[in-house]
Amino acid sequence: MNNIQIGILGYGNLGRGVELAISQQPDMELTAIFTRRNPAEIQPSLSGVPIYNVKDVLNFKNSIDVMILCGGSSTDLDSQSPAFASHFNIVDSFDTHPEIPRHFKSVNTSALLTNHTAIVSAGWDPGLFSINRLLAESILPLGHSYTFWGKGVSQGHSDALRRIEGVANAIQYTIPLESAMEAVRRGDGPAFTPRQMHTRECYVALLPDADPDTVRDQIVHMPSYFADYDTTVHFVSQEELQENHYAMPHGGFIQRSGTTGSDQENCHIYEFSLKLDSNPQFTANVLACYARSAYRLAAEGSYGAKTVLEIPPAYLSSRSIEQLRAEIL
Amino acid sequence: MNNIQIGILGYGNLGRGVELAISQQPDMELTAIFTRRNPAEIQPSLSGVPIYNVKDVLNFKNSIDVMILCGGSSTDLDSQSPAFASHFNIVDSFDTHPEIPRHFKSVNTSALLTNHTAIVSAGWDPGLFSINRLLAESILPLGHSYTFWGKGVSQGHSDALRRIEGVANAIQYTIPLESAMEAVRRGDGPAFTPRQMHTRECYVALLPDADPDTVRDQIVHMPSYFADYDTTVHFVSQEELQENHYAMPHGGFIQRSGTTGSDQENCHIYEFSLKLDSNPQFTANVLACYARSAYRLAAEGSYGAKTVLEIPPAYLSSRSIEQLRAEIL
Repeated sequence: MNNIQIGILGYGNLGRGVELAISQQPDMELTAIFTRRNPAEIQPSLSGVPIYNVKDVLNFKNSIDVMILCGGSSTDLDSQSPAFASHFNIVDSFDTHPEIPRHFKSVNTSALLTNHTAIVSAGWDPGLFSINRLLAESILPLGHSYTFWGKGVSQGHSDALRRIEGVANAIQYTIPLESAMEAVRRGDGPAFTPRQMHTRECYVALLPDADPDTVRDQIVHMPSYFADYDTTVHFVSQEELQENHYAMPHGGFIQRSGTTGSDQENCHIYEFSLKLDSNPQFTANVLACYARSAYRLAAEGSYGAKTVLEIPPAYLSSRSIEQLRAEIL
Repeated sequence: MNNIQIGILGYGNLGRGVELAISQQPDMELTAIFTRRNPAEIQPSLSGVPIYNVKDVLNFKNSIDVMILCGGSSTDLDSQSPAFASHFNIVDSFDTHPEIPRHFKSVNTSALLTNHTAIVSAGWDPGLFSINRLLAESILPLGHSYTFWGKGVSQGHSDALRRIEGVANAIQYTIPLESAMEAVRRGDGPAFTPRQMHTRECYVALLPDADPDTVRDQIVHMPSYFADYDTTVHFVSQEELQENHYAMPHGGFIQRSGTTGSDQENCHIYEFSLKLDSNPQFTANVLACYARSAYRLAAEGSYGAKTVLEIPPAYLSSRSIEQLRAEIL
């Protein structure tokens, strides 16, 4: 059997993650990486992978089975996913939750017209977290659902810090409160304020003349981003920020408590969690598996846009369904 | 839209659980319960549910959309599932892992001949645990997988206790070792002996003339069941056993640690857990959702046997796929 031929579009942290992810999968092969930059100036992580400018991508229409789109949701995927779904089977990690139905629709139209399969919004949230929210809520209709994030770097909150006058660079960690998760695990079905679920920890490098107290004040009172949370601000040097806060850990918890019984006397706790040293590398590993499922769906003529909620789990595995029934079930 | 019409075959703990489970689902209705006992002697948990002897079941071929089979794997399902799949769409919870491929094949043959959909081995293990094993191993190909069970009652181990001479009744709890799970969460990828993963706790009521020391000795040295574990034996009265050990809690943990990065320098921990006050009631809630998916698969002409690994998560939910994309993803 031939390996599944994969293309990568966009070579940032996620694209580099996908390059490594493909090398872990026994039935997949990286055909080429495409970038908007000058390919001559880019060094792939693994030797021997060809890099091309994106203007050459249509030459690969017949040699790439699935293109994994590794750009950002608002900056890139919004336009790239519908455009590329006209020429390739694709997988993207579009993660702007309220925009997903609109994105789905535009990708679906484009993919259906040209008989391609396009998996949108894969990753872990949206992605694995969505699958678990769905399973938990379907199985335990009477209950309470919770999503906790972290400990991890929130890109949006870090960006908000960087926009403050006097801030040279900054990183924000979202931290789930163990006490809140324990209350869920006891089956209390608590109602939380934002402050009761997460704390926010900021590492900020200041510009030379900035006043720490003014900056701290602006941070902790910033509406919606920080004002509703217990926020800690640490001032550090640019060097320390680079050295100790360069990694991109993340993760989180999906919890649901639900009841059964003639008097709802029995409580059940459903919990799913991820603890990730590298958010982009783990996301990349998820995308690689959904590329496999895109390949299989396309092979059986199941075209159009799909989300992780619509794909049988078995399609993610390199093993045959007979093996899975015997070895995994 | 009409509600999905459900039948229950077998009215023990699981059947009673399904009766309650259906009442939690907005789009399902319990048509009838079928039993091998005398229906006149059975009181349903919910008022107004008709109970029939199983000999009348074929009269309901056209009024029941999905029959949920609530018998035991070896005693009932082995023969019932293939037989009933000739006349109904069915769901079962066949859980004898090594026998699943054989069971699948016989149910598949019978369902395909008559255009029915049959979901076999649904529940939580096999079931939700299998889905998570598959996802975790597919996404993190380089890693280590672990399944911990408990705290919960093991029926097989309880039965083994009851077969010992001098034992009137007994219950065995399987307890996962927190220290082992913590080692997995640290990303150590440890290799465990059985003793390092679980302990076993036995509550035993003796017959009048039995010698406690002799019985304890037989328990803790019983090969494969107890000899490889740290086993504690508590002698209690029959009354205490009835009063304090009648509930059927269970649960467990699926853990996988895996690495990514050019030097496998990043570690990721994937964890799924259930903590269940009532094993049969939670299993019943899972079966209800898979009955919904059997109904939908049959409606679209997807006949034959299926397992949880082959079913898109969205098919378990009462919500439409458009709602799920907007609300859950």
